[in-house]
Amino acid sequence: MVLDKVNFPGDLRCLSISELNILANEMRELIIKKVNTTGGHFGPNLGIVEATIAMHYVFDAPNDKFIFDVSHQCYPHKMLTGRKEGFINPDMYYKYTGYTAPEESEFDLFKVGHTSTSVSLAVGVAKARDLKDEKYNVIALIGDGSLSGGEALEGLDNGAVLGTNFIVIVNDNDQSIAENHGGLYDNLKLLRETDGKAECNFFKSLGYDYCFVKDGNDIESLIKTFEKVRNINHPIVVHICTQKGKGWKDAENNREAFHWILPGTLDGKTYNEGESYNSITNNFILEKAKKDKTLIVVNAATPGVFGWNDEFRNKLGRQYTDVGIAEEHACAYVSALARSGAKPIWAVMSSFVQRTYDQLSQDLCLNNSPITMLVYWGGISSADATHLCTFDIPLIKNIPNMVYLAPTNKEEYLRMLEWSVEQDKYPVAIRVPNIELVSVGKEDRTDYSVLNKYKIMQEGVNVAILGLGNFYGLAVEVAAKIKESLNFNPTVINPRFITGVDEELMESLKSNHKIVITLEDGLIDGGFGEMISRYYGNSDMKVLNYGSFKEFTDRTQLDELYTKYRLKPELILQDIKNIL
Amino acid sequence: MVLDKVNFPGDLRCLSISELNILANEMRELIIKKVNTTGGHFGPNLGIVEATIAMHYVFDAPNDKFIFDVSHQCYPHKMLTGRKEGFINPDMYYKYTGYTAPEESEFDLFKVGHTSTSVSLAVGVAKARDLKDEKYNVIALIGDGSLSGGEALEGLDNGAVLGTNFIVIVNDNDQSIAENHGGLYDNLKLLRETDGKAECNFFKSLGYDYCFVKDGNDIESLIKTFEKVRNINHPIVVHICTQKGKGWKDAENNREAFHWILPGTLDGKTYNEGESYNSITNNFILEKAKKDKTLIVVNAATPGVFGWNDEFRNKLGRQYTDVGIAEEHACAYVSALARSGAKPIWAVMSSFVQRTYDQLSQDLCLNNSPITMLVYWGGISSADATHLCTFDIPLIKNIPNMVYLAPTNKEEYLRMLEWSVEQDKYPVAIRVPNIELVSVGKEDRTDYSVLNKYKIMQEGVNVAILGLGNFYGLAVEVAAKIKESLNFNPTVINPRFITGVDEELMESLKSNHKIVITLEDGLIDGGFGEMISRYYGNSDMKVLNYGSFKEFTDRTQLDELYTKYRLKPELILQDIKNIL
Repeated sequence: MVLDKVNFPGDLRCLSISELNILANEMRELIIKKVNTTGGHFGPNLGIVEATIAMHYVFDAPNDKFIFDVSHQCYPHKMLTGRKEGFINPDMYYKYTGYTAPEESEFDLFKVGHTSTSVSLAVGVAKARDLKDEKYNVIALIGDGSLSGGEALEGLDNGAVLGTNFIVIVNDNDQSIAENHGGLYDNLKLLRETDGKAECNFFKSLGYDYCFVKDGNDIESLIKTFEKVRNINHPIVVHICTQKGKGWKDAENNREAFHWILPGTLDGKTYNEGESYNSITNNFILEKAKKDKTLIVVNAATPGVFGWNDEFRNKLGRQYTDVGIAEEHACAYVSALARSGAKPIWAVMSSFVQRTYDQLSQDLCLNNSPITMLVYWGGISSADATHLCTFDIPLIKNIPNMVYLAPTNKEEYLRMLEWSVEQDKYPVAIRVPNIELVSVGKEDRTDYSVLNKYKIMQEGVNVAILGLGNFYGLAVEVAAKIKESLNFNPTVINPRFITGVDEELMESLKSNHKIVITLEDGLIDGGFGEMISRYYGNSDMKVLNYGSFKEFTDRTQLDELYTKYRLKPELILQDIKNIL
Repeated sequence: MVLDKVNFPGDLRCLSISELNILANEMRELIIKKVNTTGGHFGPNLGIVEATIAMHYVFDAPNDKFIFDVSHQCYPHKMLTGRKEGFINPDMYYKYTGYTAPEESEFDLFKVGHTSTSVSLAVGVAKARDLKDEKYNVIALIGDGSLSGGEALEGLDNGAVLGTNFIVIVNDNDQSIAENHGGLYDNLKLLRETDGKAECNFFKSLGYDYCFVKDGNDIESLIKTFEKVRNINHPIVVHICTQKGKGWKDAENNREAFHWILPGTLDGKTYNEGESYNSITNNFILEKAKKDKTLIVVNAATPGVFGWNDEFRNKLGRQYTDVGIAEEHACAYVSALARSGAKPIWAVMSSFVQRTYDQLSQDLCLNNSPITMLVYWGGISSADATHLCTFDIPLIKNIPNMVYLAPTNKEEYLRMLEWSVEQDKYPVAIRVPNIELVSVGKEDRTDYSVLNKYKIMQEGVNVAILGLGNFYGLAVEVAAKIKESLNFNPTVINPRFITGVDEELMESLKSNHKIVITLEDGLIDGGFGEMISRYYGNSDMKVLNYGSFKEFTDRTQLDELYTKYRLKPELILQDIKNIL
């Protein structure tokens, strides 16, 4: 293998163009095999192989600095920077994270997994270089999809006036995670169609010098262009057109489905889920949308996460909006839709709701717009540090006017959905259960307009357990453990409302309870449990809050986390015994 | 007065152009007098008088919908929509807020006070119109300065593909709050210089139809243009060039100083402060920057808030960056500066730090970049609902790796600043005291690298009072009240660290204290106090948390708020008595 000769970027410079082409094919084969085993970002990495080789051939990393946007496309870079074992040796497949990570290599500048940040970060790198009177190239790589994010646009605007070396490689594969959305993409299309020669040029309008590479999978033309811009003394955009999913036919033809794949996908393995929180959500939406033409569903570039496939989107027609990677806009957009008489349902992953704090506060909650926000994937997990979903409760819960609900089963969830969509008083967020679907088989008839009413599921004594959302099941387990070990039945409560205290119920517990336990599937700090602790601050009630600690965990096994956070019935029982 | 004849927009249509011009002058005089009495946004409102008249003359609000960005420029709109008394009658000067407010008038669609939101909101309004098959014009007004904000750019990108009526009026006065920054502004300049004819056009590159009005203070040409675009069937940008501060010479010549003015400014009244937290900060920065060329100060478009005048900026030269209205970029930028060996100090107002949550989390804290963030104006106030500064503690405190400090006096603050700038381990935020400067006259020699060490200021018994930052003085007052009324000395503690618990100290209090009081100048929910409540949850310690409630207050008097939140020594004493 040519790859045998390449351990670090310098080794590339001993190879001929034809060897580099062979290398690209070898790398591509390894990526296909590895990702089909572990799952991961597929299309973006296949598309960027040649460009990565050319970048490392021309520029002198780590002296020259590469900053990869979202790092969905950093596998080839890892292979060329001392980490190829993670792609060659199946025993090492899990050694390296799927994102750039400075702790792995000096070739990675930042830990990155959210989109649209590379240009901003690169501006800082370039400015530090200039302050220190150093000389090196700063190169931000950003995909066309990521360009629509506000942070990318702010960064581009600022990078343009640096006045010194600053190179932005725009990796244009004519695709975001799903298809692109926005006026900007018509300009990219125009530029592709005119070989970059159109006068009206988004990048030039922002003040950039500009050059165009028609075939961004052709190593030779990439090298030629990069050599021209190396050591340039001003900001320039290098617009390269690549083929997403290149080298795997299905991925070339269905760029959305192969953006990120699950293990075995290439062998035809399918993950057909039965009834799930996704499926019941989507049935609800389709039914509702048919009857009510003002219902509209909104997301920012991740329809696949919610199971919003082509059929679903086609059925909804103009009642569906993908705003592209633009979470801030999504939030303001749904607020305005609601204030203008439409009924928006906005779906967002817990990790990405972080991109909209001020919009949640100012555009949405200050205007008290009656929207429904569905927060997916919230909970403690073994995810990469860049995709933790443990912060949404503190983030959302403490904004005035917001009603944040935590259903524990299908019937409750559907009832909350129905109420939320039809009410006109509050911005409502629902934390979609991130567990296997639970059905209690009995319709929920709660009137959720009576806010902050918790539900007693089992009346008991001494200990009351508040099991929020995903962790209601854990509450039931803890209750069983208490019964078994201490021989009394504790009270089990399903709070349902994250955003407020059921003062009447909490007050009533004082008469025959000594301990209140709160269980939440997310960060303790600033969360639901602390609110309960505060409530009981002036009383004799003991309160124990359980949830995740304030830390960025990184692919840590769930069991290990649960042990550390004492989120296990036997550990909680121990804590109770210590008090009783 | 012509204004006597105008109560609502329809009245404008009975006037001749020359009467409209007289009206503009009358309105301008009233704005000048009113703002010089109450303080407020001056330059932006003077510049937009004619455009507002023309908008209301041509379009049919409230059937047609206007969305004003940041609403720094909504005074003329208020005068023409039933609220002129607020500008004519000094007794009514405080009746209306300085921002658009739906509760005041059906002509105001949203409560807005943060920048760069109008286009996004307008896209939602237009989409709701289309879903309901209604017909009206949707008009977003946005200033050139606000265009650099990510949300504006996301909104523009999405608005371009609506395919239906959508009008964005870009009010280009060649100025943000301070001067503009970014490559985009070179394009606006080019468009102004070419009467909008340049081929390379930022707005066209985003997919908009485009027209240009050279003199945006000329009512007649504005009316002609607006009449052309009224009922247009696709998205268009109307680029109008206006004179910020028009009609008040000093404001025309010094657009930054007169963006927002204090009462009496036009009569020559000056607000010379002596030594203040601003002045000591700026002295520290200038001294430090002279010695260390890697020190760099960063802000997003509000240098005036920090006292960063021309002299200050000139002294710093390339060690100063104003990124324009682009808070997300500011955060990523400083993170990258720090990771690349520079020492960034980033100043931001509490209310605007809300615009960067994900960047704080992902770009900054996940990368653990050693920056110094100075958070200004944090605290409970009688501010407008759009500018509350009570949310920064819950927002910042619960992000992993962050160290958030709350100094209580000059010496402590300077020591923290020095430590923060020179350390290389943590992202550090400092809540700049939002009170009159307090000097204890004795150098602080604390080693702040020992995290979460609180300081006992007075040893006592029974009650321990944790007075955080601004509220340390309140803690001292409460202690005196206790001594006077209950005849014992309570313990007084200055926590200094917002982000963690001094477990050793908290543990030691258990031996001879029954009550711990926390006082924080901001939202209780998710804040410092709840963390202390949680800590004591399994113990007999009673904990009372004081701070603001989870609500958007709107120009409520501070005394009223303090009473409601029980932030007064006598009320806190009462609560203590109830427990003891």
